Amino acid sequence: MGVESGMKPFTVLVNRLEAMKIIEENIKPISRIEEVPLHQASGRVLAEDLVAGFNVPSFDRASMDGYAVKAADLTGASYQTPKQLKLVGVRHAGEPYEGILKSGECIEIATGSPIPKGADAVIMVEDTKNIQDLVDIYKELKPWDNMAPEGEDIKKGEIAVKAGYYLNPGRIGAAAALGYSKLIVYGKPRVAIYSTGTEVTPQGEQLKPGQVYDINSYTLTAIVDANGCIPIRKGVVKDDEDSIRRAIKNATTYEIGVFSGGSSVGSKDLLGKMVAELGRVHFHGVQIKPGKPTLFGEVDGKPIFGMPGYPTSCLSNSYVFLMPTLRKTSRLPPTELRTTIANLTKPIKNISGREQFYTVRVENGKATPVFKQSGDITSMTYANGYIIMPIDTSYENGEDVSVVQLN
Amino acid sequence: MGVESGMKPFTVLVNRLEAMKIIEENIKPISRIEEVPLHQASGRVLAEDLVAGFNVPSFDRASMDGYAVKAADLTGASYQTPKQLKLVGVRHAGEPYEGILKSGECIEIATGSPIPKGADAVIMVEDTKNIQDLVDIYKELKPWDNMAPEGEDIKKGEIAVKAGYYLNPGRIGAAAALGYSKLIVYGKPRVAIYSTGTEVTPQGEQLKPGQVYDINSYTLTAIVDANGCIPIRKGVVKDDEDSIRRAIKNATTYEIGVFSGGSSVGSKDLLGKMVAELGRVHFHGVQIKPGKPTLFGEVDGKPIFGMPGYPTSCLSNSYVFLMPTLRKTSRLPPTELRTTIANLTKPIKNISGREQFYTVRVENGKATPVFKQSGDITSMTYANGYIIMPIDTSYENGEDVSVVQLN
Repeated sequence: MGVESGMKPFTVLVNRLEAMKIIEENIKPISRIEEVPLHQASGRVLAEDLVAGFNVPSFDRASMDGYAVKAADLTGASYQTPKQLKLVGVRHAGEPYEGILKSGECIEIATGSPIPKGADAVIMVEDTKNIQDLVDIYKELKPWDNMAPEGEDIKKGEIAVKAGYYLNPGRIGAAAALGYSKLIVYGKPRVAIYSTGTEVTPQGEQLKPGQVYDINSYTLTAIVDANGCIPIRKGVVKDDEDSIRRAIKNATTYEIGVFSGGSSVGSKDLLGKMVAELGRVHFHGVQIKPGKPTLFGEVDGKPIFGMPGYPTSCLSNSYVFLMPTLRKTSRLPPTELRTTIANLTKPIKNISGREQFYTVRVENGKATPVFKQSGDITSMTYANGYIIMPIDTSYENGEDVSVVQLN
Repeated sequence: MGVESGMKPFTVLVNRLEAMKIIEENIKPISRIEEVPLHQASGRVLAEDLVAGFNVPSFDRASMDGYAVKAADLTGASYQTPKQLKLVGVRHAGEPYEGILKSGECIEIATGSPIPKGADAVIMVEDTKNIQDLVDIYKELKPWDNMAPEGEDIKKGEIAVKAGYYLNPGRIGAAAALGYSKLIVYGKPRVAIYSTGTEVTPQGEQLKPGQVYDINSYTLTAIVDANGCIPIRKGVVKDDEDSIRRAIKNATTYEIGVFSGGSSVGSKDLLGKMVAELGRVHFHGVQIKPGKPTLFGEVDGKPIFGMPGYPTSCLSNSYVFLMPTLRKTSRLPPTELRTTIANLTKPIKNISGREQFYTVRVENGKATPVFKQSGDITSMTYANGYIIMPIDTSYENGEDVSVVQLN
């Protein structure tokens, strides 16, 4: 019977936007929650409403360094006709005054200090002159001037930060103001990463003829880690049905499984076959270059990605398809794609019959194509952006193009 | 002698740009280096040149799934006049062919596989039809078609990634391709964070009258952590000369010391005095609102920051002054300030006589001011951007303003 080939070309390709929509419809935000100390909660997603148990501040306070006064005592005060008050005390923040301020008196007070009873305004130190226990005041005030009332920042019972919000430094600050030392946040999704391919060799071993080092598990680890998820590195899986089946089953014990290699049309590309056997293939093959062989499916309700084996294809398709998945699953806000207009330094053409992800390096408003071949990781190494070229387009030297910025 | 005041108003204020320039001139990038495993190196800064010890790929390889052929065998091939070759083997990636391909023969080959000796091109599977051990081929080829030569990606001896580069996923990929399992990177600067102020109370304790919870150490921790440095949390320092002096000396054992509170003009604001005693104050007082009392100095060659005690002032000045410091010290690329044009939903005025950092929330192209008072952390909680208003400006309802985006 001789030698038989097992290759089948891709038949139905979905386009990039269809693929993104299919993914979006088939993944869900994580529901697992955990408690973390406040000082480690930045960058996480809050899973509880932060309700104020008390007013912040819990007292009327000075919002300037100066003197607490009765505003009525300063009627008519000016540089020409200063009013003189008697300094009866000095209070810094954290030191409430026990007495009650009387007419004709003032108390030195620092920003943030509680307003003494009887006082109704704060005169800024810049508008005064102090000699021994007398203070000359050069300006009139209205009640509440340079003061902030109790509860001005957050009122008791108010939800200061709502569940589902991303914890940026400002929100961490609100939690701190309310006295929280721990927060309930959403857990980080665990993403299992598998490499496939007989030629893929772990770092540290000597390369034999035809072998290459494992690149994709490292670029995938970096992408997973930078997008709110925990990479679980599973190493290289053997290219046979049993090993792939076992790896897919293992992947379903995590929130997401990502394979690289093993989803092209070579006869050893078993991932699609095994995902179909164990679950469902949502799509296999995207009308994008590089990265046609990208696969998305699900097994036991868990999303399974098959990324192309070629390093640049794997990484560029990770930016396009995996990054939004990781961010939605971890509940992080979607990446805002930042684009910049730059001037091409050489003509480029897309004759692939697919959309093309074309890497460039933008410097001083000029975009230099750095794309080599999809097997070349250096297509990504010096890129700081990419162009998505529609089917059958060409751009001329000097033409302005819209570049999506990486990082 | 009665009650005496110790307050002195700020006399010389630097403006924001002068302050940034002074900081820039007085900080230096870290030189400490360390080794990290490749899978944890993403987001770090490389401290060694990555020199290729071998060609990548280390062999001529197929860049398509198909059949390795002699291009000369296909002269004249078309759908009307296919050429027929004998299939003499199947080779996947990682499986070199031991023999030498002869005229009239072909070998099935997968993307990434080494090209067998004797072959000089790869015909795509889409352009063929295979029945048993015969392959019909419908297309002519030139030598090197659908092949990539040895060293195409990275040539032996080439510097694939230079020292000083930020390790994004693409550069991690290049390191992986070269077989690195560890990388030498710059150490993360350790930043000691101290709160001062008698009123500042650790989370977990009950607030007494006049007290507030420690907010600034948490917002500073978040900023430090998000900008390539390691926050070292030092708690609340007592407001007396000895305690402040000890804390400053302790700060010099780290790369940067950051204090909050204690740099305003209240008589207990001892930080400026102690920094001047132990080292040098570069500036104390910035013409910006909120955040006038910001201090920058150095002791034993280490930068010391005194951030305002008021939470919003502390955080907004951290974005303006501390973030660029952290990124330069850690050697991260500077933050690219992203701005967006938005439509103000109410009029705002800057009558402070200083530049004003004005927080807003931008949604659907509309910017709603959320700034309350500088004491109010909620001025930052719901902000997703800020406007820097020049001295003596006012913007009208509906006016377009340029908003710097936060996060």
